[in-house]
Amino acid sequence: MVVMYCILVYDCHEKRVAKMLKLCRKYLNWIQNSVFEGEITEVKLRELQYEAKKIMELDYDSLIVFTSRNSKWLNKEIIGVDKNPIDIFI
Amino acid sequence: MVVMYCILVYDCHEKRVAKMLKLCRKYLNWIQNSVFEGEITEVKLRELQYEAKKIMELDYDSLIVFTSRNSKWLNKEIIGVDKNPIDIFI
Repeated sequence: MVVMYCILVYDCHEKRVAKMLKLCRKYLNWIQNSVFEGEITEVKLRELQYEAKKIMELDYDSLIVFTSRNSKWLNKEIIGVDKNPIDIFI
Repeated sequence: MVVMYCILVYDCHEKRVAKMLKLCRKYLNWIQNSVFEGEITEVKLRELQYEAKKIMELDYDSLIVFTSRNSKWLNKEIIGVDKNPIDIFI
């Protein structure tokens, strides 16, 4: 089972934002606006992307997923408010 | 000179969005909504964060910066519209 660290951002029409938010929350931690992060298996990420495609208008909306095999390769810094203080970085 | 790969997301009050957008565009590539990416030196990133702090209300706004020493450690996938087709990933 391959577990990855993931940063997900979406940009959807207002009409679809609530559905996307609900979907992404099922798989990842919300950190800001339309930004999520977390550890996820490759299989679950494919599932999330598959479900997202069903919600999205692919010629209007956008979903970007950054993945890294190891969260150690990524550093994270927050300035201002930490909107979701749950943090998997050590 | 240390060059890093950077993903930046901000969540600001509407009143400050235009200023933040303009600032971030000076240093990074806009990819979506309030999301930017790009290669940046450590010095330039500190400068960007310093300037951002001057714009932000630190008890209301939020700025998150993910950095990685190597863009090879990050994979990027886009579903739907690529709002900015300039891409530094190979």
